[in-house]
Amino acid sequence: MLKVAVIGAGRIGQIHAGNIAAHPQCQLVKVTDVYAPAATALAEKLGAQVATLDEILGDASIDLVAICSATDTHADLIEAAARAKKAIFCEKPVDLSLERVRRCLATVREHNVPLMVGFNRRFDPSMAQLRESLRAGEIGATEIVTISSRDPGAPSPEYVKTSGGLFRDMTIHDFDMARWLLDEEPVSVFASAAALVDEKIGAAGDVDTAVVTLTCASGKMAVITNSRRASYGYDQRIEVHGSEGMLAVVNHPETSLVKSVATGVIAQKPMHFFLQRYGDAYRNELAAFIDQLSKGTAIAPGGEDGLQALLLADAALESLKTGKPVAPGAL
Amino acid sequence: MLKVAVIGAGRIGQIHAGNIAAHPQCQLVKVTDVYAPAATALAEKLGAQVATLDEILGDASIDLVAICSATDTHADLIEAAARAKKAIFCEKPVDLSLERVRRCLATVREHNVPLMVGFNRRFDPSMAQLRESLRAGEIGATEIVTISSRDPGAPSPEYVKTSGGLFRDMTIHDFDMARWLLDEEPVSVFASAAALVDEKIGAAGDVDTAVVTLTCASGKMAVITNSRRASYGYDQRIEVHGSEGMLAVVNHPETSLVKSVATGVIAQKPMHFFLQRYGDAYRNELAAFIDQLSKGTAIAPGGEDGLQALLLADAALESLKTGKPVAPGAL
Amino acid sequence: MLKVAVIGAGRIGQIHAGNIAAHPQCQLVKVTDVYAPAATALAEKLGAQVATLDEILGDASIDLVAICSATDTHADLIEAAARAKKAIFCEKPVDLSLERVRRCLATVREHNVPLMVGFNRRFDPSMAQLRESLRAGEIGATEIVTISSRDPGAPSPEYVKTSGGLFRDMTIHDFDMARWLLDEEPVSVFASAAALVDEKIGAAGDVDTAVVTLTCASGKMAVITNSRRASYGYDQRIEVHGSEGMLAVVNHPETSLVKSVATGVIAQKPMHFFLQRYGDAYRNELAAFIDQLSKGTAIAPGGEDGLQALLLADAALESLKTGKPVAPGAL
Amino acid sequence: MLKVAVIGAGRIGQIHAGNIAAHPQCQLVKVTDVYAPAATALAEKLGAQVATLDEILGDASIDLVAICSATDTHADLIEAAARAKKAIFCEKPVDLSLERVRRCLATVREHNVPLMVGFNRRFDPSMAQLRESLRAGEIGATEIVTISSRDPGAPSPEYVKTSGGLFRDMTIHDFDMARWLLDEEPVSVFASAAALVDEKIGAAGDVDTAVVTLTCASGKMAVITNSRRASYGYDQRIEVHGSEGMLAVVNHPETSLVKSVATGVIAQKPMHFFLQRYGDAYRNELAAFIDQLSKGTAIAPGGEDGLQALLLADAALESLKTGKPVAPGAL
Repeated sequence: MLKVAVIGAGRIGQIHAGNIAAHPQCQLVKVTDVYAPAATALAEKLGAQVATLDEILGDASIDLVAICSATDTHADLIEAAARAKKAIFCEKPVDLSLERVRRCLATVREHNVPLMVGFNRRFDPSMAQLRESLRAGEIGATEIVTISSRDPGAPSPEYVKTSGGLFRDMTIHDFDMARWLLDEEPVSVFASAAALVDEKIGAAGDVDTAVVTLTCASGKMAVITNSRRASYGYDQRIEVHGSEGMLAVVNHPETSLVKSVATGVIAQKPMHFFLQRYGDAYRNELAAFIDQLSKGTAIAPGGEDGLQALLLADAALESLKTGKPVAPGAL
Repeated sequence: MLKVAVIGAGRIGQIHAGNIAAHPQCQLVKVTDVYAPAATALAEKLGAQVATLDEILGDASIDLVAICSATDTHADLIEAAARAKKAIFCEKPVDLSLERVRRCLATVREHNVPLMVGFNRRFDPSMAQLRESLRAGEIGATEIVTISSRDPGAPSPEYVKTSGGLFRDMTIHDFDMARWLLDEEPVSVFASAAALVDEKIGAAGDVDTAVVTLTCASGKMAVITNSRRASYGYDQRIEVHGSEGMLAVVNHPETSLVKSVATGVIAQKPMHFFLQRYGDAYRNELAAFIDQLSKGTAIAPGGEDGLQALLLADAALESLKTGKPVAPGAL
Repeated sequence: MLKVAVIGAGRIGQIHAGNIAAHPQCQLVKVTDVYAPAATALAEKLGAQVATLDEILGDASIDLVAICSATDTHADLIEAAARAKKAIFCEKPVDLSLERVRRCLATVREHNVPLMVGFNRRFDPSMAQLRESLRAGEIGATEIVTISSRDPGAPSPEYVKTSGGLFRDMTIHDFDMARWLLDEEPVSVFASAAALVDEKIGAAGDVDTAVVTLTCASGKMAVITNSRRASYGYDQRIEVHGSEGMLAVVNHPETSLVKSVATGVIAQKPMHFFLQRYGDAYRNELAAFIDQLSKGTAIAPGGEDGLQALLLADAALESLKTGKPVAPGAL
Repeated sequence: MLKVAVIGAGRIGQIHAGNIAAHPQCQLVKVTDVYAPAATALAEKLGAQVATLDEILGDASIDLVAICSATDTHADLIEAAARAKKAIFCEKPVDLSLERVRRCLATVREHNVPLMVGFNRRFDPSMAQLRESLRAGEIGATEIVTISSRDPGAPSPEYVKTSGGLFRDMTIHDFDMARWLLDEEPVSVFASAAALVDEKIGAAGDVDTAVVTLTCASGKMAVITNSRRASYGYDQRIEVHGSEGMLAVVNHPETSLVKSVATGVIAQKPMHFFLQRYGDAYRNELAAFIDQLSKGTAIAPGGEDGLQALLLADAALESLKTGKPVAPGAL
């Protein structure tokens, strides 16, 4: 039985805490949050204790910490947990700064603790089956990966200012999926983007609509289309074109009701909320980490996956600034 | 090159005439209609001659006649054409009276001429592929055939009065499909029906909404659901449940455009008009008849198929009257 | 906080116990099972106590019992719980005998305790939305309800012998759905059925493949097609044809992956297992019961719903024996 | 009645000739081909005369010529027909050389004759409805156009050598669709491409797999993914993401049969052959040209549309060579 503490009791912390409590090999023992009532409510609901960060890190009986706090605390908390010899699950991203990520991962390596970075989409049953099918050669060799990833609605310009920008905040998930499905590191990134959804996002120096092309040395390509606003729900589709066929993950409708009337045959919209669409993914993500820990196998996605995705995001940003394709930096 | 004449230049006559003119082994030579301007227009458009019925039947160079006139003329025309030794294509039904159909088919047998009855749905590419898949054993043994057959809009009560009623006019197509797919004659027919669409149809002594169950001696079953009005288009679906799977023919949308908006994911309605939905079927039906004639193989669907479908329709009517399942009459 | 005990720790008991433990207004306090290790395992996992049936019924602090034991114990347990003044959730059916169900419900009425019968499909989000859409008039007046309900694989002939037969064991869910969607009690039931899947089921006096037609006084109809074996998964579809359109609940694929290859465009099969397909339904069912209890509104589906569905099942059985449509008995 | 001559009696010439013969306002009078037997066969089948090119151009009674000959003859034939004062339909492309296209269009302008260039996809009913929906504002403002355009199988390396390359030969259709749907000329083209399908195509100096991004001054974008080989049929999809929704044209299956078996729910592949997929488009294209001629409205797509698409193709080629985004040349 692994003893687990959760750092951060907000929306995503609640999801992870619930999954930890329900996992047969985990016991949720402690919860902390800078906002005490959130920690208290979550701890009570799941039969855990409220604690301070120091009490968690100082408690030798705790095996694993799940970092679900604000993005700008991630790197510090990973380092602190590494020094305390905990296994670490951290929500993406490790940090918005490449340099900070590199330093943080060095600390993790130094203390030799397992670290999983929360690229949850890899654990969505449909996405996971897509990759298994690819690896099993069901469509031959991969040639073009097409990712349509569009949020149901745009964030506030305030959020945008601290988000690191579209590529580091939102596309980063798609960069991870592209790498995972291409099975080869892109050597070139070209981004075309604009603020078409909300001019305030443009005024804040960011974009909200983008097309990004990734090219590999072998000639394999990936193309990502992003929008901060899809009026019809959370649009999350991936398609892989291979030498012997095509694999596609389509959207998940809210229900399976279909209405045929004079205006058409109307199916339900895609699920609107990422916690609903990826509920299974969060559950499976935790289970995979526990499974990797118990088997002693390599942790995936690990810190370097976080870094690689950030390198692609930074290359996309540079491409957007220069108007040219950019080679992503090295690890 | 077969020389062909078309009797009846109305809506369906125009369809068949156009297909005849376009068929590489046919030449449309004569057209007749009780309404002269219709015959003239059709003949001019397709480069054929206007003629009287007697001129057609008396012209020894004509190999084949296509009877596309009013239902109550079919049996007489078939007999006349049989006596004139023509190959005969006749739109369904042969007649609304069993006795008249039997007499007519006897005449056809006596003169030993080929007769195809226009159950066009057998020649729809999707329906034909369904049957091929069944015969190839792709879903093992047939167990339940489910036919959803619904017209886009109800006919006038006037039409209903002379139509022979829902079962003989509309369901007869479905009875033919059920026989064709069951590959075994039903031994029992049970009908439940009402006038839910238009009470004037009920006042005219007919029904407009029905569920009919057919049972075979082997235990195989078919169920037909009919409505005279499907607000969302012409609903034409068939599903066969077998021991190793299911085969289904789904509706054909008007176009392949799909709109995703705040109210849902909206595909196009099924094609509205039977001439549009079954355009390929009419073309293939003629081609199949020509092919059967040239190969000298049995004509299918032939006169006895018309009779069998009518026997099922009459049994359904009797079931509706008596409230009990009814065994269909013998050929 | 409602204190809840679960009677029966088998497959379905585990589902309900888990949902009870996770419900914010419930506390799972006791678990019992005739097979002690099952009770122990379930109680440990969810932090409840193992208890005897008497300890549960004698514990005045327990508000609600969930009866998840074998079918032939349901009626006795409902009566005992009613005498102990507990709110009762009982898995369907109340009993296989009409007379026993009537007596049991009389006891419930006498003690005036709330009873919900586990017709879980009403709480499936898609099915619930279907009914809401019907009630909101989205397709006008209901005319034909078509239910395709097919299990992934046939049960053993041994199970069949004690099951009460196809209609009471499996179709009973569909009878409930038909009543619920027709919003009018059927006045006639006609069943056609055979043992096509497994002749041993026939030898055991049961059928495994059926088409059942229900007719209402208003002319509305429902048709149910059942099979004990759908090689392609758990087939659970409902379609309602109305005066202004059609509503359909389609199957839920196992994942949203679609493969396009030389042999076709291959989507995933429907979910195979009823606990997977109806996982949300079980959760929502409990939540609805808690909600009805807290609001003091009528319990639905209640004991009389269980009785009405059984009346339809018995009428179907009688129809099958006599070969004629049968009017279902009165409450 | 327009008198029409067809130049070129090959595969595409046969299609256009058949549509011309069937059009109520056209009469197909003459056919020519450098390979005499092809002209003879086509003329006989459709009741036209075989003629030389000079006889066609010298026949003052001929109103319209349809140029369906080899690509390298298009520009010369357009010019000759323009001088002969014929209305001209010409299959795409006008020529592979920008300079030649410009000269040719100058001649057309000089003689002031109508010219339609055969971008048939604009006339596909689904594509046309997509554009109508866009113009009607059904999804608000256009933001991202995504075109998936993949041939069923790769051409021979010999064909590739004379084709002008992927962008001028195949993508040119997609460039036209992108322009037509964006409703704004792209200002930047970025292409990423490789020979992944057949290394002989690479050895011939061409590519067979590509991702091309088009950017407009307003920020609107289009992305095209091409492959010379889609094992699952002819993949022709377009999707437009707008401020208030998404419109998509999906593939057309060969038939509407769907098979559910133990390996999945298998729909038919997309239609394999472009003449089948775009049969309606060719018919509508001719009808639109006749309609534009009779109304005297501007011809669309006209010669300048052919030129603009070629400018995009050349920019894509330049982008591929330089590894940078390229601004397309001016008209």
